[in-house]
Amino acid sequence: MLANFPVILGHEGAGIVESIGEGVTTVKPGDKVIPLCLPQCGKCSSCINPNGNFCVKADITGRGVLSDGTSRFTCKGKPVYHFSSTSTFTEYTVVEEIAVTKIDASAPLEKVCLIGCGFSTGYGAAMKTAKVTPGSTCVVFGLGGVGLSVIIGCKVAGATRIIGVDLNKDKFEKAKAVGATECISPKDYTKPISEVLKEMTGDSVGYTFEAVGRLETMTDALASCHMSYGTSVIVGLPPSATMCTYDPMLLFTGRTWKGSTFGGWKSKDDLPKIVTDFLAKKFDFDELITHVLPFNEIEEGFNLLYKGESIRAVLVM
Amino acid sequence: MLANFPVILGHEGAGIVESIGEGVTTVKPGDKVIPLCLPQCGKCSSCINPNGNFCVKADITGRGVLSDGTSRFTCKGKPVYHFSSTSTFTEYTVVEEIAVTKIDASAPLEKVCLIGCGFSTGYGAAMKTAKVTPGSTCVVFGLGGVGLSVIIGCKVAGATRIIGVDLNKDKFEKAKAVGATECISPKDYTKPISEVLKEMTGDSVGYTFEAVGRLETMTDALASCHMSYGTSVIVGLPPSATMCTYDPMLLFTGRTWKGSTFGGWKSKDDLPKIVTDFLAKKFDFDELITHVLPFNEIEEGFNLLYKGESIRAVLVM
Repeated sequence: MLANFPVILGHEGAGIVESIGEGVTTVKPGDKVIPLCLPQCGKCSSCINPNGNFCVKADITGRGVLSDGTSRFTCKGKPVYHFSSTSTFTEYTVVEEIAVTKIDASAPLEKVCLIGCGFSTGYGAAMKTAKVTPGSTCVVFGLGGVGLSVIIGCKVAGATRIIGVDLNKDKFEKAKAVGATECISPKDYTKPISEVLKEMTGDSVGYTFEAVGRLETMTDALASCHMSYGTSVIVGLPPSATMCTYDPMLLFTGRTWKGSTFGGWKSKDDLPKIVTDFLAKKFDFDELITHVLPFNEIEEGFNLLYKGESIRAVLVM
Repeated sequence: MLANFPVILGHEGAGIVESIGEGVTTVKPGDKVIPLCLPQCGKCSSCINPNGNFCVKADITGRGVLSDGTSRFTCKGKPVYHFSSTSTFTEYTVVEEIAVTKIDASAPLEKVCLIGCGFSTGYGAAMKTAKVTPGSTCVVFGLGGVGLSVIIGCKVAGATRIIGVDLNKDKFEKAKAVGATECISPKDYTKPISEVLKEMTGDSVGYTFEAVGRLETMTDALASCHMSYGTSVIVGLPPSATMCTYDPMLLFTGRTWKGSTFGGWKSKDDLPKIVTDFLAKKFDFDELITHVLPFNEIEEGFNLLYKGESIRAVLVM
């Protein structure tokens, strides 16, 4: 994600409305809300289509300003830029109405903040983008926070076999705790992972998910789903300005290759429903929250992440 | 398609059962049938899944023999090979029970023969693989027999705008006759065809189809559907042993890229229904049949095809 500097970073959070501007009708002071790093303007070509969600108002180029071209942050009289329409690493932020959604008043903010990005991205890749069917076999490449959320989505959708794939076997325990039925490392095999999975499953892999962001893993994931009815979803962000090379016969025989941004959800409409499902215990993601830190220990949160010791460190203000 | 020689070629036809072997129960002498170049064994991993159709019994390597490893044709005492499970360029052929399906007794063989491959491939790409929705905008790259069949499928599915794309403007008249609402040639524009189509449609292309078999057209077709909700279907056979290079961000934003073989139909189950729909005038494909020739003029049929004067020349025995 690009950004202009100086900037208030952070894009995944939850909070309470302190005040609203003129004309705002969908939230009011005191409402619990989730800021939306992928807004939903309701008017663009993505928003008006029932299957679209990549709103044109998303700040993908990192301009760091609101729709009217202004920043609403200053420091010592100089402008400070917004980040990803949200800027959550702060006690108070300013967002547009299209970039915030009201959630249930009973939602625990220190948990549902994950619904603001990482959890919804993985969960939706399975539930909304792939539309995993009951009884199916799923394979998830990459067992970080997003990959684990994909596993939770596959489980809620009723998959009977969920295979986690990661080079780091330390990730396996957590993957199994959230729903993986088995885990494998490509390092343990000499043959291509697609062949390993075909043999393991009797050639029945319905869905594969790439939650790493590597081009080679994307084509491996494509090859690993069934040649005729398989669907492979790209969840990891591809490296910028790179091209992907693959054998087109992989698609020709009938496979489906899809991308998923923010889990395919229409953010303002769908996130409150995900919060409601969370409160109804349709799923939980306690396993994803490895640390809870006071806001002034944010540096420690990043250190834990870099060291691989943390999946999500929730910062409490 | 590969083949062993000597061989009886031909894979798209219709006929009448002359005799059956021991244990055959789904067809009997006198039945009108369509031979299936993509069989449906009913038992393999593709056949047992509701969304699969690429049966493992398909003779994709061109062995030219039946499942038991034998050829059933001889000439002067020497074996002659089968082609694509069907071998239709002959007055009498031998097929396996999994490679033939009974159709309505009132079906005109000299027309429904097209349902044996070309028509069903294009029609199904729209109806079955893409599942084109009513009111949508579709773009078809390549206006040969398969591309025209895609257009018919888009029309039956209720698309309101169907744009044909071909370098050869001679193809436009026929495309409009079968349902294209407009046609364009990339030669008339300096900018990428994806941008041309985005402007033409107000960024609303729901479905694109590649019915050419060129890698560049496949990636153009992908780029031409809507970045968030668009679906692009590869119908044309990619050149053998080539790799396709594309920008993975095209998928990441939400597009879907699918392959379609034989229109996604389960051949033995679905072709009789397509024949029934044809008889019920749900669609017609008279425009695709440009010539009807006696079988002994088969060479002339190929000459017409090579010269671009024929879409389909039906050979009548």
